[in-house]
Amino acid sequence: MAQYGSNIVLSNKEFNVVGTRPIRHDGTDKVTGKAKFGADYTPPLTLHGAVLRSPHPHAEIISIDTAQAESLEGVLAVITSEDFPKSSDEQSEGASRLINVRDNVLADKKVLYQGHPIGAVAAINQHIAEEAVKLIQVKYRVLKPVFTAPEGALPEAPLLHPNLKTQTFAGESTKPSNIAKHFRTTLGDIEQGFKEADFIVEREFTTKTVHQGYIEPHAAVAFWNRDGKIDVWCSTQGTFVVRDRLSDMLKVPVSQITVTPLEIGGGFGGKIPVYLEPLACLLSKKTGSPVKLTMTRKAVFESTGPTPGSYIKLKVGATKSGKIIAAKAYMAYEAGAFPGSPIDSAIQCISSCYAIPNLDVEGIDVVVNKPKTAAYRAPGATNPAFAMETIVNELADKIGIDELDFRLLNASHEGTFRADGPPHKSIGVKELIEAMKNHDHWKSPIQGPYVGRGVAIGLWFNIGLPSSCSISVRKDGTVALVEGNPDIGGTRVSISMQAAEVLGIRAEDVQPTVVNTDLIGFTGLTAGSRTTFATGWAAYEAAQDVKQQMIDRAAIVMETESKNIDMQNGVFKDTKNPDVSMTFKELASQLDSTGGPIMGQSTVNPKGVGASASGCMVDLAVDPETGKITILRFTGFQDAGKAVHPSYVEGQIQGGSVQGIGWSINEEYFYGPQGDLTNSTFLDYRMPTALDLPMIDTVIVEVPNPGHPYGVRGVGEASIIPPPAAIANAIHQAIGLRMNQLPMNPTAILEGLWNSQDSLPNN
Amino acid sequence: MAQYGSNIVLSNKEFNVVGTRPIRHDGTDKVTGKAKFGADYTPPLTLHGAVLRSPHPHAEIISIDTAQAESLEGVLAVITSEDFPKSSDEQSEGASRLINVRDNVLADKKVLYQGHPIGAVAAINQHIAEEAVKLIQVKYRVLKPVFTAPEGALPEAPLLHPNLKTQTFAGESTKPSNIAKHFRTTLGDIEQGFKEADFIVEREFTTKTVHQGYIEPHAAVAFWNRDGKIDVWCSTQGTFVVRDRLSDMLKVPVSQITVTPLEIGGGFGGKIPVYLEPLACLLSKKTGSPVKLTMTRKAVFESTGPTPGSYIKLKVGATKSGKIIAAKAYMAYEAGAFPGSPIDSAIQCISSCYAIPNLDVEGIDVVVNKPKTAAYRAPGATNPAFAMETIVNELADKIGIDELDFRLLNASHEGTFRADGPPHKSIGVKELIEAMKNHDHWKSPIQGPYVGRGVAIGLWFNIGLPSSCSISVRKDGTVALVEGNPDIGGTRVSISMQAAEVLGIRAEDVQPTVVNTDLIGFTGLTAGSRTTFATGWAAYEAAQDVKQQMIDRAAIVMETESKNIDMQNGVFKDTKNPDVSMTFKELASQLDSTGGPIMGQSTVNPKGVGASASGCMVDLAVDPETGKITILRFTGFQDAGKAVHPSYVEGQIQGGSVQGIGWSINEEYFYGPQGDLTNSTFLDYRMPTALDLPMIDTVIVEVPNPGHPYGVRGVGEASIIPPPAAIANAIHQAIGLRMNQLPMNPTAILEGLWNSQDSLPNN
Repeated sequence: MAQYGSNIVLSNKEFNVVGTRPIRHDGTDKVTGKAKFGADYTPPLTLHGAVLRSPHPHAEIISIDTAQAESLEGVLAVITSEDFPKSSDEQSEGASRLINVRDNVLADKKVLYQGHPIGAVAAINQHIAEEAVKLIQVKYRVLKPVFTAPEGALPEAPLLHPNLKTQTFAGESTKPSNIAKHFRTTLGDIEQGFKEADFIVEREFTTKTVHQGYIEPHAAVAFWNRDGKIDVWCSTQGTFVVRDRLSDMLKVPVSQITVTPLEIGGGFGGKIPVYLEPLACLLSKKTGSPVKLTMTRKAVFESTGPTPGSYIKLKVGATKSGKIIAAKAYMAYEAGAFPGSPIDSAIQCISSCYAIPNLDVEGIDVVVNKPKTAAYRAPGATNPAFAMETIVNELADKIGIDELDFRLLNASHEGTFRADGPPHKSIGVKELIEAMKNHDHWKSPIQGPYVGRGVAIGLWFNIGLPSSCSISVRKDGTVALVEGNPDIGGTRVSISMQAAEVLGIRAEDVQPTVVNTDLIGFTGLTAGSRTTFATGWAAYEAAQDVKQQMIDRAAIVMETESKNIDMQNGVFKDTKNPDVSMTFKELASQLDSTGGPIMGQSTVNPKGVGASASGCMVDLAVDPETGKITILRFTGFQDAGKAVHPSYVEGQIQGGSVQGIGWSINEEYFYGPQGDLTNSTFLDYRMPTALDLPMIDTVIVEVPNPGHPYGVRGVGEASIIPPPAAIANAIHQAIGLRMNQLPMNPTAILEGLWNSQDSLPNN
Repeated sequence: MAQYGSNIVLSNKEFNVVGTRPIRHDGTDKVTGKAKFGADYTPPLTLHGAVLRSPHPHAEIISIDTAQAESLEGVLAVITSEDFPKSSDEQSEGASRLINVRDNVLADKKVLYQGHPIGAVAAINQHIAEEAVKLIQVKYRVLKPVFTAPEGALPEAPLLHPNLKTQTFAGESTKPSNIAKHFRTTLGDIEQGFKEADFIVEREFTTKTVHQGYIEPHAAVAFWNRDGKIDVWCSTQGTFVVRDRLSDMLKVPVSQITVTPLEIGGGFGGKIPVYLEPLACLLSKKTGSPVKLTMTRKAVFESTGPTPGSYIKLKVGATKSGKIIAAKAYMAYEAGAFPGSPIDSAIQCISSCYAIPNLDVEGIDVVVNKPKTAAYRAPGATNPAFAMETIVNELADKIGIDELDFRLLNASHEGTFRADGPPHKSIGVKELIEAMKNHDHWKSPIQGPYVGRGVAIGLWFNIGLPSSCSISVRKDGTVALVEGNPDIGGTRVSISMQAAEVLGIRAEDVQPTVVNTDLIGFTGLTAGSRTTFATGWAAYEAAQDVKQQMIDRAAIVMETESKNIDMQNGVFKDTKNPDVSMTFKELASQLDSTGGPIMGQSTVNPKGVGASASGCMVDLAVDPETGKITILRFTGFQDAGKAVHPSYVEGQIQGGSVQGIGWSINEEYFYGPQGDLTNSTFLDYRMPTALDLPMIDTVIVEVPNPGHPYGVRGVGEASIIPPPAAIANAIHQAIGLRMNQLPMNPTAILEGLWNSQDSLPNN
């Protein structure tokens, strides 16, 4: 298999540190095994827990008898939903969200998916805990399940929640339904739009439930101390979110809870919800000891949030001059057992790459008997991109225009109206498409039989949220940086680099530590591609604070006023006396004699979030005998705004691309006839490995985000969006088959071929 | 035995939080065993170490053969002084200090005291490590030792360091000597002073080496990572000091070293030096694994710094009207094996309680074959107070004036010149003596045969040094406080209270965490009674920073300007619209909507250090048959400036008093004929226990320190100073014997009685 591995950075502005590739601060710890991940922490006298999970996808709980489990020697506590503090006035909307989160953690009255936790045990060791779980007697009344959004939305579908009403922009429905949300947003005049269209394509698409597939299963340790203080150690994307959720669920003030992040072995959005943490807390409260819970891989698949399967119907019209003029979409997303699929993002993203004057986008969020969905890398955006980007290709074919030129002609830009929300701010969709057009991959010939090339693009809006940072200066001229974002993809270094740039020192001279919730101001999730953007900004501001204080000290040493000091590239100069200068390091050694130590800090709540455009180009071969797809060449393109550390941006592009490829060609939750998940291992739930794929080439496009000091946009998510459509487009080119379902696995391809034998071109 | 236990606070100003007695934040952890002390931390795969210590008090090391130790199965590394990086240019004064510290940690060429470490081993368990240590073959050439300062200062004394020159105010001597320092300071005209004196008393005093006797032996774990970063976990009074010492000794920048404080089971100054930390680092570097070292009690006594034994000759003259007019002192302090006894403090403190116009104070620092001395609670001040305060009593007797009136007449005050340094700032010596005179104890009759009452006073100058603090606001209206001082005596709460006072919240609503050297700006030692003073001040300033930011947010919510907001007792009011107000808690819940999180921080390097005066009053009975002393009643008095948390001030007074009593009547390093310490266990080195003493009554005098926002002086040390003199004065009253040596144990008392039988009064 060819190894490409060329990485290109289309840079816009040079800095001293930002844009370079220093070794990450946590590198040695991670490659030598010193780094402690979720399951690596076991305080002395820790009890071990296990969780009873539902065998049924939908059932009423008639009774739970824990007596036998409690009497097993070595068992110290058994909990059920009854152990949660519950107040009688839990009726408000906020409370219903809380109840859903709580009922997902431990089922109350009903189980809503196979794997739904019902009870948990703490025992002196793991074996006894697991034995005890089997002794919990649950009587069920099994109910009919429903598994997909379109089915769940039918009036005759079995209801999961007897009191769930449909939320719309106009208010709430009166009748109970599995449809939790029903949103519709329009722009222009959709009917007139389609009237003006010369070409219209309308197709239906289905995608399956897929999991983030992080390497590290969930793990949590909790210790509920006798003074009411709770310590939690876990692998999470957001320590403050875990703290706040626990506070709500346990009815304990946030100040009583300390959440300490361990290293995280992947998250991709799936380590935002809490699962084990509340159970460990309740078990610790009952036993007075630390309690540890870890998930098996089976539990991860069955009980943690995947991304939704979906049904999408999309109709797009274009003029013969190549202008997309109208688009109408209907999307039904599976929420899983409780409301909350990313249908909002889907509505926001489906047409966001294009300036389409007439839009009608409708979406429903449907509860079904599967695990509650969680975020997964650009959550909600990949499914509609599969629909939109394959139809865009089909329209280009019909019009007879190059597929990239067609995209460029219709590309959205700053000021383009969106279906939902305010017009686009600065975005790099055009620059991204130009980079794709100019790439060697696009210019190279396609070779071999049943080989095709496909392209697709996507846009992810990214998020902001508050972040905090503090920085202390040390006498050797280095600084210690404190921040609160678990480092999933290299954010220790990308945050540190932004501080280093301000201070004129090396990235290696900034030493970052990710701390618990007691040691830094509130800091939002490591999610939404926000960490390098927002916490990097906090580091920038904290460094500015340090810089100003250092300037004041330089003025003392140089016997002048602060306003006369100029600091560039880490050198302080007296502008009135240009011969006098000193470096950051020299000044750092004189802090004691000039007033004491220096700390800087900042908290930010940034509003200048910049969306990130991504694209990909894939060459693949289809084996018409087996339906197997072989990816021959793959190039990922992404607008980073400014790539703070290009290597980790490239890593994000490669990682997102591979997840997108897996989603495209193989991954799915495969259910048996009783709604039992039959592939809950990595052997059966087959994700692509390094052996399955060529090296992913990358191109970083830099269209600086004016809403960030260094132009950063955030790059963690967008690259997962285009691969399914690009692969579908390549399949079409290879064998003439238009795919409209994920995964495009051998079965789907062979079925497609059998259903339309004449589509196989002469290769 | 009578239980008094009355605690009096003579308060000067009321605050809302400062001056109250909330439960300490670390209370539950410490009483339930959750708190982790030095030896409680063992990371996975830790190797265990043991140290070879010299059996000789003075010897040349001819050779060290580690081969046999290294070949023992289970041994992974053996180190000697050769393993320290040593550079050829180690000749400067700073370097000689470094060499001394290093040679104390591992002997190079010579051993200078029994217990001097020579080598260390890391092995897979403690037993093998201890076996291996015995296999290290050391050839010695035994040298004649010298044990006391006067002997060590003699020209014919065996030299410990062939190149040690005597440092004086005028420069350095040319001839090698055991006298490391020889300082002399004068005031007025000493000869004229004595001419004008009507009464002169001159006496010689000796005191023995005593140990701090902290409960917890030293322990350290180090991990020298493959990227050159070093993590150290230890029980220390100063994480930043450990970091800086290790940086010097290991020639590694401070930024490569992270020192994490574990809880500390007592320090009293003795946990400032490093002993095990460098050894654990070197062993970890050699093995690539974490290495843990803990001391036995024997090692603590033999190898860690006690406070010096001393010889003092003091001559004091007074007029018949009761004015002390001249004092001349000569003090010889044992430095231990390396220079650095607290002779400077002795010179500064000997006359500091009194306004004496003519002074001549001389002191020498003499190296002897004992462990290098370390700080011990008001280091250097107790020995000369024993001399001064017994002579003051003798003079009062001769003049025929009440001993407290005599002290009051001569008490130093703001502006009084000192023998050494600038005139006194605000001090509370007079107020302290007044409080003693007014106390019920002083007014109560003395009862019983061979019973006496004694008083004495002392003054300790305290220290400042830099401190840092950061504070984050949480949405439930509490704040998280981050600081860097290991909490020995309740400083988490005393620091938090000062922040709470500023913010108008409860002490319980401030949650303090003591963090490692990467997570906060430089913070000086927990020592010199500085923590509540300096780090409390940092907390005050960080809280002011938070307060101003909260005022800005209140202005946003109240739709006015910040300058219109008044904040008192945690309530924000719009001065233009007095009906509008909100509490700190209400505002804290609105941070997200008003701009994001709030963090405040500060670094301070305070200059307003305030000295703390202490006094004590003791009733005791002497058994003339056995010489045994029984303490009948004891009242400690101390000027706290402002007592932030009176309970912990009372605890400091009681603790200091008990240590002073132990030093007075029993404790000493008892050496056998070969210089071998014969009482290196707590069974033989007998410290007073709760069973030996009555409850110590306390009186907190509050003379606010104008150099601190709340008037804090710092209270950790001064109360150890007066007990020896007070007990000697009480013995004199009981049996007419003037004691001039410590300890005043049964042997000393019986010898005194036998030498002067006629002094026994008729009781």
